[in-house]
Amino acid sequence: MRIVNTDDVTAQLSAFMAEREWEQFHTPHTLAKSIAIEAGELMELFQWSDDAPVAEVTGELADVLTYCLLLAAKLEVDPLQIVLDKLQVTGEKYPVELARGRSVRHDQL
Amino acid sequence: MRIVNTDDVTAQLSAFMAEREWEQFHTPHTLAKSIAIEAGELMELFQWSDDAPVAEVTGELADVLTYCLLLAAKLEVDPLQIVLDKLQVTGEKYPVELARGRSVRHDQL
Amino acid sequence: MRIVNTDDVTAQLSAFMAEREWEQFHTPHTLAKSIAIEAGELMELFQWSDDAPVAEVTGELADVLTYCLLLAAKLEVDPLQIVLDKLQVTGEKYPVELARGRSVRHDQL
Amino acid sequence: MRIVNTDDVTAQLSAFMAEREWEQFHTPHTLAKSIAIEAGELMELFQWSDDAPVAEVTGELADVLTYCLLLAAKLEVDPLQIVLDKLQVTGEKYPVELARGRSVRHDQL
Repeated sequence: MRIVNTDDVTAQLSAFMAEREWEQFHTPHTLAKSIAIEAGELMELFQWSDDAPVAEVTGELADVLTYCLLLAAKLEVDPLQIVLDKLQVTGEKYPVELARGRSVRHDQL
Repeated sequence: MRIVNTDDVTAQLSAFMAEREWEQFHTPHTLAKSIAIEAGELMELFQWSDDAPVAEVTGELADVLTYCLLLAAKLEVDPLQIVLDKLQVTGEKYPVELARGRSVRHDQL
Repeated sequence: MRIVNTDDVTAQLSAFMAEREWEQFHTPHTLAKSIAIEAGELMELFQWSDDAPVAEVTGELADVLTYCLLLAAKLEVDPLQIVLDKLQVTGEKYPVELARGRSVRHDQL
Repeated sequence: MRIVNTDDVTAQLSAFMAEREWEQFHTPHTLAKSIAIEAGELMELFQWSDDAPVAEVTGELADVLTYCLLLAAKLEVDPLQIVLDKLQVTGEKYPVELARGRSVRHDQL
């Protein structure tokens, strides 16, 4: 069994882009726009309903994730480490006692 | 050196959410909306300029990624595997010979 | 010459939706999602470039505006009056002397 | 009673921007991004619920509409006329007999 890790996937994405000479189009700005565009397509699956086919949701999520990994690589940050770093910040803004079972913003806790 | 992998991070996210009893708010629909909302905040950093401070971009990217990992977990798919699966599909739609150096949609190749 | 006003257009949109029995799908929530989805399609025209064909931009802008008018009607607010009301609020947050020639947020003025 | 029309509102927006020397920041590209960013803020009100306070929805809708009017002015198109033009196109793609009571895309009718 091969364990896929983010470095492997980023390397494959990078090779894919290099082959097609697409890196020239990739800047933090164009990648941020691309993430937002793909996020819109993901949300379109839920436009009229709270439910959507898993296969389609998976496909659109993959597109968002792809651009996220490309942006992380461009910024030279580890995509998983920054999630953990942010989780710690969020944990401080939303202490368990105050936040439990509530979906309000931290400034309304 | 500890290698962070997606299962670890997903487990930490899951524990964080369980502690705060926030899983009740997380459905594919609300997570898809959340991804789009955070993607909008990421893009806001580039509203008037092609450039943005790396630390701020990193912070917003982390928010998008967090919801992506939560959605992947909810769908019970591997977030890295679906990126690789999609890459193969994209590779077929954009053959190297036709796509090289061009940023057009596949139906215009 | 016929002057088009927002009431006329809203009435035509309303008749169009009634004919197709589509009002049942329109709530503030689904209309807000629809605005964001169409805004993503508008932005897609600028994904890789600062420029886009006017006709295509116009078409996507029309889609965003259509859902904005439907949402205003659903909320029973005048779409132009709320723009003017907000302009006054914005004017107070961004006084001319401080804001002139600067694209920063009001809390950074 | 004064009837507000889009030309009046666009003129007021234009004067507001000129006073602050903000027109320099407004291109179709930055306005399209701004529409998407504000649409994300509108949708944020519905992140965890199908319901949101009318006053807040109205305020965010006003922001989306403001940038839509600015973009229409920049493109030199009438914001209401393009909605009507698009409505005609949509009517042809979704004939009443086929589309009645259905929220599917036209290619699935």
